[in-house]
Amino acid sequence: MKIAVVAPSCTLKPEAAERVAALAGSRGDCELLFHPQCFLSDGHFAGSDAERLAALREAMADASVDALWFARGGYGSNRIAQAALADLPEAARSKVYMGYSDSGFLLGGLHRAGLKVAHGPMPQDVLRDGGEAAVTRALDWLVRRDPSALEPDLEAPAFAFNLTVLSCLLGTLLEPDLAGADLLIEEVSEHHYRIDRLMFHVTASANVRRAARIRLGRVGDIPANDPEFGTDELAIVEDWCARSGIAFGGRADIGHDASNRVVPFGSKIS
Amino acid sequence: MKIAVVAPSCTLKPEAAERVAALAGSRGDCELLFHPQCFLSDGHFAGSDAERLAALREAMADASVDALWFARGGYGSNRIAQAALADLPEAARSKVYMGYSDSGFLLGGLHRAGLKVAHGPMPQDVLRDGGEAAVTRALDWLVRRDPSALEPDLEAPAFAFNLTVLSCLLGTLLEPDLAGADLLIEEVSEHHYRIDRLMFHVTASANVRRAARIRLGRVGDIPANDPEFGTDELAIVEDWCARSGIAFGGRADIGHDASNRVVPFGSKIS
Repeated sequence: MKIAVVAPSCTLKPEAAERVAALAGSRGDCELLFHPQCFLSDGHFAGSDAERLAALREAMADASVDALWFARGGYGSNRIAQAALADLPEAARSKVYMGYSDSGFLLGGLHRAGLKVAHGPMPQDVLRDGGEAAVTRALDWLVRRDPSALEPDLEAPAFAFNLTVLSCLLGTLLEPDLAGADLLIEEVSEHHYRIDRLMFHVTASANVRRAARIRLGRVGDIPANDPEFGTDELAIVEDWCARSGIAFGGRADIGHDASNRVVPFGSKIS
Repeated sequence: MKIAVVAPSCTLKPEAAERVAALAGSRGDCELLFHPQCFLSDGHFAGSDAERLAALREAMADASVDALWFARGGYGSNRIAQAALADLPEAARSKVYMGYSDSGFLLGGLHRAGLKVAHGPMPQDVLRDGGEAAVTRALDWLVRRDPSALEPDLEAPAFAFNLTVLSCLLGTLLEPDLAGADLLIEEVSEHHYRIDRLMFHVTASANVRRAARIRLGRVGDIPANDPEFGTDELAIVEDWCARSGIAFGGRADIGHDASNRVVPFGSKIS
């Protein structure tokens, strides 16, 4: 299986690419192609919008590529997502796309365009503690749809988003139809008051209110609130689900960490 | 003129209340009533949702009160805004409401309900460098509609929002009709990449795209971006206006500072 890696937001660390390439090489069941664009740098981004878009479009149009793996998160895929979806080449429809965090902008838009996408670990995750397990999990699913890589309690149609990304794609052309969804959310490095504000926004959406349930993944590295917020992220999410009449489905096994599991979007869990 | 002060989000500092009371006393043209709720504390908030809502509703229903002045920003008015707007008492319609930042949630909802609202300095601003001028400006407008307190280039219908608040009220019942609007935005303590993400979200809104123009107030205390983002807040806002076909109307004289000017919402600038 041929897997292309591009970086629609921020620059991939070369040592991450080296370690993931070595790991893939030792597996022998996949060939990884790190697009040179992954290592470009232009201010915050892995190259200009035009450079990131060109690499993404090139990989999407390559009929020999079976999967497109987003190198890492950060910020910036939303700046090129709409252009990436224009005039889709046929080859773009025969592959699967994986990433999470900022990549959620692309996953939302690609899914909406009818393409196969999944939330899951990315190459730069190899640098986390235990990161090889995360990358192995992603490859196990990309290469052979290993069910043990999946978040264990998914009910189709499933979706997984970073909460900030979900809030910022509501009302845009990247917003997927969430009717009946098992909607998994996770967050990192946001204060409790910001999580509360995001939940206010997200749960006010008529589209989100059509979800079957919301489940909460891990919320990592929460900065200290001054004063203490008063409740925790679980209580916050339960509260806004109750206020908005959305079922709260408990915790989910996703997050910005090495244990992050795969969530294929849409109607089929495989 | 009787002006009631309530705190729909965070706790007002007693020394701010003392200084603003002294300032109002020396003017002799207004009576300030600091509701005891301003000084409550419950985690992040100036009292529980129930306590903040009760104080707000009490002041709204008080026919002897001519203006309702929000004590300060922070976070939390969105949690009680919808309940505050239910079954509006007649006395709520005969007064004017002023605040900014987090208060934008309430301003949006109150304006939508047909009440008279204005973006403008708040009591806690007295603690800023030069803060007495800010509070004096707010009172000059509340008491005698002093035109020198106004943002100088307003074209009705005008609106002013903190960018994060605007992003989080889109799609909620607090979102005002922005058709033809002179839409002023300001921000504080957000990274450039977050400002860019918020502008992506806000300018994707069909309602925002009906605005006549967007103008950019001051963007204060921007945390360092690592690496440097590459452009500044002015270029970011101009870029998203251009991408979305919204006219960019230049800078605006508002922000989280002592120079913040008054912006009455809606069809009449007075």
